[in-house]
Amino acid sequence: MKLPTIQPLDQAAMNAARERQNQLTKPAGSLGRLEELSIQLAGIQRKALPSIKDKAVIVMAGDHGVTAEGVSAYPQEVTPQMVLNFLNGGAAINVLARHAGARVVVVDMGMASKGEVTSPLLIRRRVGSGTMNLAQGPAMRREQAEEAVQYGIEVALEEISKGADILGTGDMGIGNTTPSAAIACALMKVSAEKIAGRGTGVDDDGLKRKISVIEKSLQVNQPDANDGMDVLSKAGGFEIGGLAGVMLGAASRHVPVMVDGFISTAAAMIAVTLAPQCKDYLIAAHRSKENGHALMLEWLGMKPLLDLDLRLGEGTGAALGMSMAEAACKILSEMATFGEAGVSQVVE
Amino acid sequence: MKLPTIQPLDQAAMNAARERQNQLTKPAGSLGRLEELSIQLAGIQRKALPSIKDKAVIVMAGDHGVTAEGVSAYPQEVTPQMVLNFLNGGAAINVLARHAGARVVVVDMGMASKGEVTSPLLIRRRVGSGTMNLAQGPAMRREQAEEAVQYGIEVALEEISKGADILGTGDMGIGNTTPSAAIACALMKVSAEKIAGRGTGVDDDGLKRKISVIEKSLQVNQPDANDGMDVLSKAGGFEIGGLAGVMLGAASRHVPVMVDGFISTAAAMIAVTLAPQCKDYLIAAHRSKENGHALMLEWLGMKPLLDLDLRLGEGTGAALGMSMAEAACKILSEMATFGEAGVSQVVE
Repeated sequence: MKLPTIQPLDQAAMNAARERQNQLTKPAGSLGRLEELSIQLAGIQRKALPSIKDKAVIVMAGDHGVTAEGVSAYPQEVTPQMVLNFLNGGAAINVLARHAGARVVVVDMGMASKGEVTSPLLIRRRVGSGTMNLAQGPAMRREQAEEAVQYGIEVALEEISKGADILGTGDMGIGNTTPSAAIACALMKVSAEKIAGRGTGVDDDGLKRKISVIEKSLQVNQPDANDGMDVLSKAGGFEIGGLAGVMLGAASRHVPVMVDGFISTAAAMIAVTLAPQCKDYLIAAHRSKENGHALMLEWLGMKPLLDLDLRLGEGTGAALGMSMAEAACKILSEMATFGEAGVSQVVE
Repeated sequence: MKLPTIQPLDQAAMNAARERQNQLTKPAGSLGRLEELSIQLAGIQRKALPSIKDKAVIVMAGDHGVTAEGVSAYPQEVTPQMVLNFLNGGAAINVLARHAGARVVVVDMGMASKGEVTSPLLIRRRVGSGTMNLAQGPAMRREQAEEAVQYGIEVALEEISKGADILGTGDMGIGNTTPSAAIACALMKVSAEKIAGRGTGVDDDGLKRKISVIEKSLQVNQPDANDGMDVLSKAGGFEIGGLAGVMLGAASRHVPVMVDGFISTAAAMIAVTLAPQCKDYLIAAHRSKENGHALMLEWLGMKPLLDLDLRLGEGTGAALGMSMAEAACKILSEMATFGEAGVSQVVE
């Protein structure tokens, strides 16, 4: 498939933002990560004064054949139940998105049950009715992986055409920490033990099962670490492919993406393997409590904004991070300079 | 002086909040620090569903005789200049407070120049025209330390009577990382080298000077670590005493305080030394980049919410933290329970 073109960040805009940060009424650099973030956002949006006015969290749902192996603490029926909860505004992502002033866009990328959620608010981009069991073969066919990524790109472009100037990523899919960990192991070439965690809360036996399922999957499927689409098809999920597509689509239109936790970071690893330039458009919202997340962020070379022991997904960390990104933009636009405020500068 | 009475947190409210967190549509504990914070806020506000509707950041300004020793990168005239900037809405704290939906309350606790800022918006609680040089004797008389704390209590009660249900602390005072570090050294009984940092940006020589000034101050003044008022008078500042008072006043009225960075944490150490019960009402907003801050938080037994390399003060970290506290309350109040949403629970 042909991926969209992604340009490098705009260095002139970044330089202008950096220079302005040094003229604002504060010691240079004293707003730390917020200053760095404002400069990255200037480069992404290609303007010295980036702005965030329309925030959308894209929550993609999918089911996973690997749940047959007993890798999750929750039954698969929870995926559509939670999607309904998202559409009714009662989930954590709804609360945190409202708090951050972001809208929530819910996409069915391939839940196991087709017609359970009938709301017209649900965007349907179904690649299939859940993936196959990755412990026994590829999770999906290569064409399905491409379709998932393509759908994600389309959803991103659609939201951007409606005005979104930042996208957040979120996921829902019972069992999806297993494919996410499998993706990380395949790309980083590390053992499952280093990456797999307790997800929504499996016990010691569950964790052991999960680790052996991931190891088995890698042996059975032999994903090619140089081919992001191969890794996605063998070890991934429909919502994970969709989120990778969201990142590629947003980057192609100079729109920043606030990457949520473990599952979204696995999607980011796929996106960056498919198109390395994409990385500059991504912001890591937080470090999840899930075991291997810190290593995955390190592999990507991304430093998370927040560290709140979150392990929920849904885009909850992304919503909080988008508010930080908005704050970073406002610092650049709304603070007075030393000259404007008549404040003396450093003693030389 | 008589300090206000501070009650322990309400355990029944905390238990009710904890129980509700486990019924909300998410794996128990999966919102990490936000859940813990919501439970603490329930205990502070003495209700199962705490709420934050009126946020005020109290920024206290004062000057410091120790600037004569060359411990700051900025001249003392910047204190009133920045206070004017606060009142005009152009400083970082104004931008971040607006972003968080908080109002900014600016208090002159004792700037060196008396009449420079004429705005009626400035609250005047002047203990003096700047402190004395703590390298040569006590920074202030004991009565002045008591007055500063008393003023702080009054300012807190005034804002609470206007409706504030959370207070943030902020500071402005050229040179005030030096007394803050001196307070920490006195209370923690550690060397200045472990605590002092570059403040707004002194060079290597400036940092050496600062360390020797603090060591000298401790030798000359011999502050008594068991007597918070003694430490404040010998090593402190008017705005630092005021902020300690804000914390005591808020705690006495069951109002949480979001503690900003290095200077506010020194104030928290004074407040907790004066009244240990106060600690439960305090929330550490962030870990500052300033050298000893992490150790000071550890001494207090407080875990910061954010870690963004901020080192500006003014209450900037507190403003961001207050937004997190509000989000934590909304999670408790606005999320659907498993029963309400018809979502299946963990497989037993």
